[in-house]
Amino acid sequence: MSKSLDDLYEDYRPGWSLPGPFYADPEVFEAEVEQIFRPMWQFAGHACEIPEPGDYFTFDASGDSIIVIRTDDGDLKALFNTCRHRGSAICREARGHAKRLVCPYHNWTYDKDGALIAARAMPEEVDKSMLGLHRANLRMVAGLIFVCTVGTTPDFGPVAAAFGALLDPHDLGGAKIAHSMTYQLPANWKLIVENHRECYHCPSAHKEYARIHYDTRLSSDTWKPEISARTEACRVKWSAMGLDTGNVNPTSSFTGAWWRANRTAFPSGHVTESPDGQPVAPLMGQFTDTDMGTARAGTYPNFWLHATSDHATTMRLIPMGPDSTLMRADWLVRDDAVEGVDYDVDKVIAFTDRVNREDRELILGQADGVRSSRYGPGPLVMDDEQRVKHFLDWYMGKMTSPASLTDRPSAIARSS
Amino acid sequence: MSKSLDDLYEDYRPGWSLPGPFYADPEVFEAEVEQIFRPMWQFAGHACEIPEPGDYFTFDASGDSIIVIRTDDGDLKALFNTCRHRGSAICREARGHAKRLVCPYHNWTYDKDGALIAARAMPEEVDKSMLGLHRANLRMVAGLIFVCTVGTTPDFGPVAAAFGALLDPHDLGGAKIAHSMTYQLPANWKLIVENHRECYHCPSAHKEYARIHYDTRLSSDTWKPEISARTEACRVKWSAMGLDTGNVNPTSSFTGAWWRANRTAFPSGHVTESPDGQPVAPLMGQFTDTDMGTARAGTYPNFWLHATSDHATTMRLIPMGPDSTLMRADWLVRDDAVEGVDYDVDKVIAFTDRVNREDRELILGQADGVRSSRYGPGPLVMDDEQRVKHFLDWYMGKMTSPASLTDRPSAIARSS
Amino acid sequence: MSKSLDDLYEDYRPGWSLPGPFYADPEVFEAEVEQIFRPMWQFAGHACEIPEPGDYFTFDASGDSIIVIRTDDGDLKALFNTCRHRGSAICREARGHAKRLVCPYHNWTYDKDGALIAARAMPEEVDKSMLGLHRANLRMVAGLIFVCTVGTTPDFGPVAAAFGALLDPHDLGGAKIAHSMTYQLPANWKLIVENHRECYHCPSAHKEYARIHYDTRLSSDTWKPEISARTEACRVKWSAMGLDTGNVNPTSSFTGAWWRANRTAFPSGHVTESPDGQPVAPLMGQFTDTDMGTARAGTYPNFWLHATSDHATTMRLIPMGPDSTLMRADWLVRDDAVEGVDYDVDKVIAFTDRVNREDRELILGQADGVRSSRYGPGPLVMDDEQRVKHFLDWYMGKMTSPASLTDRPSAIARSS
Repeated sequence: MSKSLDDLYEDYRPGWSLPGPFYADPEVFEAEVEQIFRPMWQFAGHACEIPEPGDYFTFDASGDSIIVIRTDDGDLKALFNTCRHRGSAICREARGHAKRLVCPYHNWTYDKDGALIAARAMPEEVDKSMLGLHRANLRMVAGLIFVCTVGTTPDFGPVAAAFGALLDPHDLGGAKIAHSMTYQLPANWKLIVENHRECYHCPSAHKEYARIHYDTRLSSDTWKPEISARTEACRVKWSAMGLDTGNVNPTSSFTGAWWRANRTAFPSGHVTESPDGQPVAPLMGQFTDTDMGTARAGTYPNFWLHATSDHATTMRLIPMGPDSTLMRADWLVRDDAVEGVDYDVDKVIAFTDRVNREDRELILGQADGVRSSRYGPGPLVMDDEQRVKHFLDWYMGKMTSPASLTDRPSAIARSS
Repeated sequence: MSKSLDDLYEDYRPGWSLPGPFYADPEVFEAEVEQIFRPMWQFAGHACEIPEPGDYFTFDASGDSIIVIRTDDGDLKALFNTCRHRGSAICREARGHAKRLVCPYHNWTYDKDGALIAARAMPEEVDKSMLGLHRANLRMVAGLIFVCTVGTTPDFGPVAAAFGALLDPHDLGGAKIAHSMTYQLPANWKLIVENHRECYHCPSAHKEYARIHYDTRLSSDTWKPEISARTEACRVKWSAMGLDTGNVNPTSSFTGAWWRANRTAFPSGHVTESPDGQPVAPLMGQFTDTDMGTARAGTYPNFWLHATSDHATTMRLIPMGPDSTLMRADWLVRDDAVEGVDYDVDKVIAFTDRVNREDRELILGQADGVRSSRYGPGPLVMDDEQRVKHFLDWYMGKMTSPASLTDRPSAIARSS
Repeated sequence: MSKSLDDLYEDYRPGWSLPGPFYADPEVFEAEVEQIFRPMWQFAGHACEIPEPGDYFTFDASGDSIIVIRTDDGDLKALFNTCRHRGSAICREARGHAKRLVCPYHNWTYDKDGALIAARAMPEEVDKSMLGLHRANLRMVAGLIFVCTVGTTPDFGPVAAAFGALLDPHDLGGAKIAHSMTYQLPANWKLIVENHRECYHCPSAHKEYARIHYDTRLSSDTWKPEISARTEACRVKWSAMGLDTGNVNPTSSFTGAWWRANRTAFPSGHVTESPDGQPVAPLMGQFTDTDMGTARAGTYPNFWLHATSDHATTMRLIPMGPDSTLMRADWLVRDDAVEGVDYDVDKVIAFTDRVNREDRELILGQADGVRSSRYGPGPLVMDDEQRVKHFLDWYMGKMTSPASLTDRPSAIARSS
């Protein structure tokens, strides 16, 4: 790269798309890992994936493999998947069950909290308590597990409050994953976030989505009265059911600096995200009515969720490099629903998988185009892309503010 | 790389092959893109590929995707394939037909000249005339399309004159592509050009080529009288037919600084580039005689052509990195020739495809060898490799002269 | 890399594993090539692979392809596989037979010593004696061929003496390769060497190996008397047979700075490295007794060998990058043994191939783990990993001492 990062940041013009190097430059990507991914809470997975003590899954947090495990007292812990002896990975599978964590190389053995409990032939004088697995921070809200690998973490309190109020009625923690799918996108992760943060492309790209949702009609004078009336009717109904209705609105805008949580009404006659808007699985949680709208939540930089009365879909991004991102989609249904009897997996995933594939084509086309030497920032269309600006402004703030106080590895407590 | 580029250029010794880093160093490759590929005219494709208004093909000009399109008035335009909104590629296929150029992402719509004609929800105050697709320069001669992506271009006049005089009788603009083939060569592009610029390797490597052409016999005292007599006889005949015979000779040397155009007689009894030297397709253009020799033309850095009375072959290089190059070969025959009736594709391509494959083996072997830490420039054998020296001298001149005045992107006109 | 190499070397703490960048950083890898691989003797292959004049194989010495060839007088020569004309590789196959070395590009022709003997159209005044193939240094001991590509080489004398004394009775030079296998390991080469230099992992990882060898019982008070008695009994027997017994011991430690050679007794009842410890091929060399223990030898950085009375296994490492290594295993049996009659290839390779595959899993797990940002050096367990410390201390000495006097390419003699 010919420009320094600082000069590059100067090129950012709020209300315009990013300069090209932000989507391609390895140095920018490294800075993103340090300034954005490591210091932020990243969505790792679901509490319902690891219901029993010893159940674990691994999560790639910017190149750091993290073991998320349930301990004997039912807590969740996040441990670095790196033996304190000579560094071997301990858990080699994406998920599993372990009574103890035993390194396959020399059988150093850790308990579920990460404490070292056995190391053959280790001299007595070595202090085992200094050799526990390194720990990452972990927070769980509404069955969603977030991990932060550095010592000082962003305040999770407001997210816990908002996500809890919105999502607890869906009981995602007591659900099960009906299906998972990982999309490999040879594209910068920000192109995926930007794509998700605007519906300017929906009328032409997502005809099915546009039909069952109001999203593409929000600025239409024809539709405004109906949308208002329908939203207000839903608010009254949901409030009577005891749901938190503090953020019932159709806009999906961010309510916090790096997170959002709102509930959005469907047009009458549609109740869930399926091709025809009709239910595809049994009611979740304590719901008794199918018409619960879409609970929508998300956190920068790697997570968003849509939850309806019968199922929920979560998206998790893992950036692999400047032009490579993995996007995992999980579809959740209630835990006691029986596949083939209560729901058909193909029907549960049809709607969102289609949206994802439609977006994939758009994102890859953009990834190709922004590689051009003649690409330069273009003007965002503010009526439809103000949320892209929100993301880019937040992003640029993170990139240009010192992370020096928050990302010191030394600040992480060792397991003892 | 331990040496600076300037130090490296100092290592060049005219009459010797290049130092190893020229074939491997990413910094050299980047400099080549800026000093050679972007500022020069690159062969992009054939006018006959896009006969109708709205027909287009895309061309990768050093990482810049260029749309070459025929407009309603029959002109050819070269447009950067990057939407002025958020940079998406507009044309995703290698060729196609479009009434208008519509970005697949948000449907911004451009006419065939690149002017922006529609952008949904765009505020009135935004000046659409500033948001046309960026244009590249384009020249066409004898049906061959050349593109230059920077503002100030090398003078194309002499090439247009020489190529026109040589090639217009072949009517390549009114021909059709009988077959295309892309060879992937894990080798530096200069190894391919060097290979093409000498026939020192022909006696052992291209026995078929050596048999039907005089190229390997030019310095043989035994053959000189026949070659002179045959060349002179052809000149007289072709002149009587009204052909330009200003550069009828057997040497294939460059006649301009970065281009060449000559006509070469076949040994008696051979009339085209086929295994037995006999015709493989109907006569092209206005020819009435099969014995028209080989029209040979080329431009540094990415193009050469051989045209005989019945078909023509063009080669286009696209360098993908220091050790990766795509070489596309197109075989052209007259437009109204019917495949399977008037010509057999296998027979049309047999001769040149064989030469290409033989060269591929040699080039890959050289690419392996020059990677050695002990490789150093070797002496060119001037009787047979003087044209390699011509290329290397030209190349080094471009690399060491400032391109600063010619490659400013700002100098390119925006479409309006 | 944020740290300079010098700062990184400062981070090394003897008795602990290496800091993470040593296993991943391209700059460290480049320094290793210059400080370790080029200046050291690398095992290239076996004399028995090229018994006749003109037989050759090629060896990738840190990116330099080397032709190892037998000359007409039976000598072995190591030549750089790069034509002195324009650098093409000359031998394109991994092994073959050549009366003369003829460059495939322009047929420049060299004799088996590398002297240029023909170059078509070369002017008389060019001094062909200056254009022979560049030579590398070569040493052979006990049929093992070592190559060094720089001018000043480490003293090979002690290795020749020790390897000769230990291995000459096995007659590897007169053997044949029963089978070769190349393992591709996406791991740093040092992880492979470290793995081979300790048996701390053997009890859990190599149960078959642990059963037929004493290696895992050396520090067991229960086993010490038997091991001593058995070793002494073998020493007496082998001495009576005329074998050199100067280094009969069970420890496999390095006896020189960068090499080792010892003979180790098997537990009674086992005589070779096979699943049941029983012979899998005819006796090699002049042996008349199957119970000859394991001759074990090795050199830093790329070679080790185990030889028993009936077969031998050699390992050769070729580092391809910071996280990629090729490991070739060769299994040798006596030359006149007939496959399917005197030996079964599957049985010859079963034991060591299994150990190699078990190690492969461990090494890849470690390669994954040391990528973590939180990986840091861990304490070696000295009772079992002192030989890892030996390797790391040697390695760090090479990395921090100037190789400036030994790795000048100019010091290599040209063939004349």
